[in-house]
Amino acid sequence: MTFITFEGPEGAGKSTQVKALAKALKKAGRDVTTTREPGGAPGAEALRSLLLDKDNHWSPTAETLLMNAARDTHIRHTIAPALSRGEVVLCDRFCDSTEAYQIGADEALIAQLREKVVERMPDLTLLFDLPVEVGLSRANERGAADRFEARGLDFHQAVRERFLAIAAREPSRVVRIDANQPQEDVEKEVRAAVNARLPGLL
Amino acid sequence: MTFITFEGPEGAGKSTQVKALAKALKKAGRDVTTTREPGGAPGAEALRSLLLDKDNHWSPTAETLLMNAARDTHIRHTIAPALSRGEVVLCDRFCDSTEAYQIGADEALIAQLREKVVERMPDLTLLFDLPVEVGLSRANERGAADRFEARGLDFHQAVRERFLAIAAREPSRVVRIDANQPQEDVEKEVRAAVNARLPGLL
Repeated sequence: MTFITFEGPEGAGKSTQVKALAKALKKAGRDVTTTREPGGAPGAEALRSLLLDKDNHWSPTAETLLMNAARDTHIRHTIAPALSRGEVVLCDRFCDSTEAYQIGADEALIAQLREKVVERMPDLTLLFDLPVEVGLSRANERGAADRFEARGLDFHQAVRERFLAIAAREPSRVVRIDANQPQEDVEKEVRAAVNARLPGLL
Repeated sequence: MTFITFEGPEGAGKSTQVKALAKALKKAGRDVTTTREPGGAPGAEALRSLLLDKDNHWSPTAETLLMNAARDTHIRHTIAPALSRGEVVLCDRFCDSTEAYQIGADEALIAQLREKVVERMPDLTLLFDLPVEVGLSRANERGAADRFEARGLDFHQAVRERFLAIAAREPSRVVRIDANQPQEDVEKEVRAAVNARLPGLL
């Protein structure tokens, strides 16, 4: 029925907010599927491990191809069936992450694969935005960095800018959420965004 | 230095012929790297397992993306460095297999990814051609069928036709080898093709 994606850097609190919104939606009587990318289906989770493994040296092009192969399987196996059953699907990362993180890959290729693989864009995308240093220090507290987390500050700054550029380009789909505030306040901002963009859902 | 690919269906005897040609080239004083697709590099071999696993249900699009991600890594990690060192690279399957097997995927996408990922096309491609029934019965004798082998006769007939169409389209690169004859005779035909197309190599 309704497809909502959660985007933003490491340490922005996306997965916490997925859980909180799922709880609120269930309380409102909705059937909810929560999922994540890369992953969310058996073959796609195997690709997730390969993608995040620091021992693998994928080029930006290979990364883009793997992300889209995982997404294709995820959509067919998990997202599309749940939407067909009338559920609300909450997804932790989706195609905007591919666009924001695959710096160095061919932009035209990324756009073309998005068009090819993503049959249905999200109804709403919540972009959890916060200063790069804050996000990274939160992510570091969680433990060992994966391939993406391990990159330098400049990389993460560029990722943040690319996320903000997507929000500016598609304001009808993407809402920026200030993730640099207490968790409860972020949660309130999320609910306000859902009520404003998808009235009657909550 | 020189890049030679071996293409054709299951059971055509490609890997036997890779070994035989490698031996002949070494005898002629060449440094040789033999490799295969999907695979040929650590991350790419992991993708090979995912691709051939019958429990995974990749769509034709996902399959195409995974094959190209594996190829990108294989080229950077194995093929390009060996060619730079002046070696002869013999590769069991390459981009023609992607084109022949990914029936149902977008042809334009396949062509575009080939252009994006394959910086250097093979100097010579040997297409091992034989009747579909003969190839499948040989492959079955070898043991359990993988995801590709397990498909029906019509699929394999279509694959054969697509391989032959590539040979017709690119006659300066692709030589058809009659694989439906004793191994020694196939070997002779291979050497004749190499001598004709790459004089002085053997």
